[in-house]
Amino acid sequence: MDQISFTPKPDQFTYTFGGNRAVSVVKPGSILTLWSEDAFLGNLFKAEHKWTDRVRPGYVNPQTGPFYVEGAEPGDTLALHFVSIEPSRDWGVSTLSPLFGGLTSTDSTASLQAPLEQRTWIYQLDRAARTLRFEPRGGGRNIELPIDPMLGTVAVAPAFSEVRSSLVPGPFGGNMDLPALRAGATLFLGVNVDGALFSIGDGHLRQGEGEACGTAVEGAVTTTLIVGLIRGKSTPFPRLEDDSQWASIGSARPLEDAWRIAQLDLVRWFEDLLQMDAMDTYQFLSQATKARVGNIVNPNYSMMVSVGKAALPNVYAYEGAHNELRRQAASLKTA
Amino acid sequence: MDQISFTPKPDQFTYTFGGNRAVSVVKPGSILTLWSEDAFLGNLFKAEHKWTDRVRPGYVNPQTGPFYVEGAEPGDTLALHFVSIEPSRDWGVSTLSPLFGGLTSTDSTASLQAPLEQRTWIYQLDRAARTLRFEPRGGGRNIELPIDPMLGTVAVAPAFSEVRSSLVPGPFGGNMDLPALRAGATLFLGVNVDGALFSIGDGHLRQGEGEACGTAVEGAVTTTLIVGLIRGKSTPFPRLEDDSQWASIGSARPLEDAWRIAQLDLVRWFEDLLQMDAMDTYQFLSQATKARVGNIVNPNYSMMVSVGKAALPNVYAYEGAHNELRRQAASLKTA
Amino acid sequence: MDQISFTPKPDQFTYTFGGNRAVSVVKPGSILTLWSEDAFLGNLFKAEHKWTDRVRPGYVNPQTGPFYVEGAEPGDTLALHFVSIEPSRDWGVSTLSPLFGGLTSTDSTASLQAPLEQRTWIYQLDRAARTLRFEPRGGGRNIELPIDPMLGTVAVAPAFSEVRSSLVPGPFGGNMDLPALRAGATLFLGVNVDGALFSIGDGHLRQGEGEACGTAVEGAVTTTLIVGLIRGKSTPFPRLEDDSQWASIGSARPLEDAWRIAQLDLVRWFEDLLQMDAMDTYQFLSQATKARVGNIVNPNYSMMVSVGKAALPNVYAYEGAHNELRRQAASLKTA
Amino acid sequence: MDQISFTPKPDQFTYTFGGNRAVSVVKPGSILTLWSEDAFLGNLFKAEHKWTDRVRPGYVNPQTGPFYVEGAEPGDTLALHFVSIEPSRDWGVSTLSPLFGGLTSTDSTASLQAPLEQRTWIYQLDRAARTLRFEPRGGGRNIELPIDPMLGTVAVAPAFSEVRSSLVPGPFGGNMDLPALRAGATLFLGVNVDGALFSIGDGHLRQGEGEACGTAVEGAVTTTLIVGLIRGKSTPFPRLEDDSQWASIGSARPLEDAWRIAQLDLVRWFEDLLQMDAMDTYQFLSQATKARVGNIVNPNYSMMVSVGKAALPNVYAYEGAHNELRRQAASLKTA
Repeated sequence: MDQISFTPKPDQFTYTFGGNRAVSVVKPGSILTLWSEDAFLGNLFKAEHKWTDRVRPGYVNPQTGPFYVEGAEPGDTLALHFVSIEPSRDWGVSTLSPLFGGLTSTDSTASLQAPLEQRTWIYQLDRAARTLRFEPRGGGRNIELPIDPMLGTVAVAPAFSEVRSSLVPGPFGGNMDLPALRAGATLFLGVNVDGALFSIGDGHLRQGEGEACGTAVEGAVTTTLIVGLIRGKSTPFPRLEDDSQWASIGSARPLEDAWRIAQLDLVRWFEDLLQMDAMDTYQFLSQATKARVGNIVNPNYSMMVSVGKAALPNVYAYEGAHNELRRQAASLKTA
Repeated sequence: MDQISFTPKPDQFTYTFGGNRAVSVVKPGSILTLWSEDAFLGNLFKAEHKWTDRVRPGYVNPQTGPFYVEGAEPGDTLALHFVSIEPSRDWGVSTLSPLFGGLTSTDSTASLQAPLEQRTWIYQLDRAARTLRFEPRGGGRNIELPIDPMLGTVAVAPAFSEVRSSLVPGPFGGNMDLPALRAGATLFLGVNVDGALFSIGDGHLRQGEGEACGTAVEGAVTTTLIVGLIRGKSTPFPRLEDDSQWASIGSARPLEDAWRIAQLDLVRWFEDLLQMDAMDTYQFLSQATKARVGNIVNPNYSMMVSVGKAALPNVYAYEGAHNELRRQAASLKTA
Repeated sequence: MDQISFTPKPDQFTYTFGGNRAVSVVKPGSILTLWSEDAFLGNLFKAEHKWTDRVRPGYVNPQTGPFYVEGAEPGDTLALHFVSIEPSRDWGVSTLSPLFGGLTSTDSTASLQAPLEQRTWIYQLDRAARTLRFEPRGGGRNIELPIDPMLGTVAVAPAFSEVRSSLVPGPFGGNMDLPALRAGATLFLGVNVDGALFSIGDGHLRQGEGEACGTAVEGAVTTTLIVGLIRGKSTPFPRLEDDSQWASIGSARPLEDAWRIAQLDLVRWFEDLLQMDAMDTYQFLSQATKARVGNIVNPNYSMMVSVGKAALPNVYAYEGAHNELRRQAASLKTA
Repeated sequence: MDQISFTPKPDQFTYTFGGNRAVSVVKPGSILTLWSEDAFLGNLFKAEHKWTDRVRPGYVNPQTGPFYVEGAEPGDTLALHFVSIEPSRDWGVSTLSPLFGGLTSTDSTASLQAPLEQRTWIYQLDRAARTLRFEPRGGGRNIELPIDPMLGTVAVAPAFSEVRSSLVPGPFGGNMDLPALRAGATLFLGVNVDGALFSIGDGHLRQGEGEACGTAVEGAVTTTLIVGLIRGKSTPFPRLEDDSQWASIGSARPLEDAWRIAQLDLVRWFEDLLQMDAMDTYQFLSQATKARVGNIVNPNYSMMVSVGKAALPNVYAYEGAHNELRRQAASLKTA
């Protein structure tokens, strides 16, 4: 297996899904260790820093990639297994940015009200305790929160020659901002273009469900992942599997449509896996699924609908691809 | 403490929040043991039964109550603590009803498409194993799911003289369909009319988040609850506390508005509890909250936004009312 | 034909649809001349007046009625023909009220932003020119706008024993805020309870589509209407007919659902009137309909979808009820 | 003034906004006469033709262009004045396509229901009478409707290097499907990239508001337009002016956000034009605006909010650019 490490140079970051040349060609089965910058390109590192002073519009969520996967073709599925996602620095950052977030009017949920105050918070990381320290700016107690590193953004190039900002989630993955996208998970993405052209970015040291204020505890992270490729099987919407659950991911507005996409995709998927008809699968999943919010702040909102593995022994999705990738990941760690 | 048991006679059920005379007057501190019928009035008990044959429009979600709480006045808060919620029968029932549910068009998300097939499922309860058996109607394996009993509906009479169908959730509580409304939880509801006039119903033996097909595993249940009353403190939206979390509940369409209501109410609540300013509270909660879907099928959709207690020792909401009610519940069990 | 005039005494106004005793019993065919107060009960009559000082929560949109129509039963349709709607005073009033309106966050599209400034505008009516004078409060030119009087609110009692605030539009009519509800129009409302129990209110001297700031140029008005009753024909959603168009009215959130309700109701209606199948009717109406916004500020938003009469000679809805009511209205004027 | 005619060859059509090389470079002030194909590339010309047989996914809404406008730079505004839009053929076509349209579930408002039946309608054009003949496929009368030619799609290249499908409307214009985009209108679009790179397409011989079934009466059309360029003045959202109104255009989901964008943009625009403060402008426009639906079927829905010119003499937007373009258009016709 190829093992590749890659740290982008400043001019190598990309800011769209699609529309960029591959930074590297990788073989299926490769193990990549990738450094990714935080959502603000590392430009906000003091509580005094302001988003509007130090971030250029359009230059948010820098991506590491895209990578061209040899042999990946439209109609295939990319299976990215995340072996580890670890903070690269000893701090993370979050902000209130003008007219961005869930409890403010925005460019599209538009109002005449004045924007909220801008504010920036630096969270110090205690590596030993694996906690982040929240320090209120206006007075009050500090609060320690456990880290739970994840990637806000994992994407392939979109279909139909579209190029989307790295702020957008969709059928191609993208800025889904799902806490479940942590180490131990496998993300399945349908391939739209030769080589798939996947990228990652927007590391979060932790994030609440919904990403209410618009930003998580953003951090540079180092990700080790295994590139799986499943030929001849298409995947219409992003799917996630870890050791306890299978999940489908929808991204749309209004939020109920994100849920509808995910819930329907899970029904279609499990009709096949359980060999049940659509109405029985719909019924069973109605009693068994969890519905988890990713973000309610991006150009599309995201939800993940999942079903636990406990009630369904001997069910294997994608012919057990996740389990196989887990085994490879385990062998890496012991190697 | 008064201990009261109540099983409604067939003509005592109510089908609205507000608009009904109290079935009983209770004192704050009373312990009530209440029997509630399932959402279909017990009329669907075979897989061959059809919703359209056996359920009269407007006679769904029968309520047990309302109860008049002595001394409760507008501006007070009712604190209902659920000691136990247990199945009254050895089976539950779920249905696909025409143009109702999350993966179908409805009366308001209207389409020209034909309705889905009607179907009814009876789930047998194994009391010892505490599991429900899902039996597919169209072929395939049976699946065992753990029971997790909850109340779909707990409400007070609405404000401004409104009377709402028992299918509706809102600021008055109502048909929230939240799995967290299980034994061990305390629900806080703002009082809108003298006596509060609360009712319960719509027992679920278990429910997936979203209640995708429109109905949970519906069941008659026996609920023991303690009626707490907090005078002089208002509660704008329903709030829930259990041993691990505090939560605010929003109900609205589109789904993001249910979330906005809940997330904002939690910010306003914790500004006070944490003695932080609004922007710091917003930031902290953005990194700490979970956003859980109740239903995406009722006239209003519901979401619950919660924050865990682990990171916030020595915080007490409503002056520790939940803990006090827990102690009373514990003493009941040992009595 | 009975001719009845009614001006409510201060304690006779009602604030809900449903839940009130009839102020009067009227026969089908009666001609009513009704005085209705403005949305603020006449309490805002100077630009210095503030909404929050002079309007009690829950006491907005006072209704004149309800009227009990002899013989009206569930399954019938009430056909209210508006002969004239004229200003009762020489001024109208509009406001910016806190957290109400289309370009502000609200109780449900909730945000942490500060509310907009409160402001009140008094519009002077020039009866001869039939214009209203807009006088900016913060400087700039006055602007003359033509009056176009309409009723914001016409309703019957809701189904299933519900009682709704007079701020709400729905299948029962209610606070639809549609400019098309002017003199010359006939409104068809399905009867839900014996006597129908209809009421009117919320006169607007003129209103933009959407009622963007939350209030029109609100005014006390005097309405002359003829009460038609169509027995044995039900009407699921409000419908409007005037000399140039037929229209269906939907009220829901999000706004697309208001449109879906109205567009589907029009398809179902015209399948019958044109004796075409559903797909042909859908196609024809797609090329022919206009979609007009009522309000985007009330608890439900409202839209009206209409088709013009020019392309459809010899089509008569409700067996020509509108034309017959028009003839009666014309004979009144010449009498 | 340059006068240019252009009819694309089959391989010259483009299917995205952005991402394509200019087909031609034009000077500001140029008069272009452009032929555009219908939304289906002319492949549906018999009622027996099926969308799924004859249209390739991703090859819908072919664009004529893009054109590079000399000197156009980000921060400028393109003012496209439509002198004439006339049918190129004697027929138009409309379809019901699977899971596309307003009264069906779709890929995002997803359901388990079966798609509607596919159907295609050919509308014959009577050039003398300027009418289209609707012929129902399942029986019933033919209906004549007046033609009202318009362009569904006019766009510049999007900002931030995005490339969007020609099915999408947004701040760059695009697939807005607004009946007001007819001859006599001027469309103002903010320039995002050097040369603006504008394109047109998706001619409609007529369209109902909302484009309910997903397609208008689609037709190849010949458009004559004048390319205006306003330097140094930016335009955040598309704006339209004709002889009777000024309008702002919003595109988003849910539909109320399309309206909010448009209503707010109009407030901001008229604060400046009327020299009034924001609250007065908001108030005035609330009483004066019309809110017109474009489409409720595309990836973003579109609405246009307009204010009439009658009440506002001596107001000139963009320094009278529309009037100047009108004069040029008039001189063309007399030339």
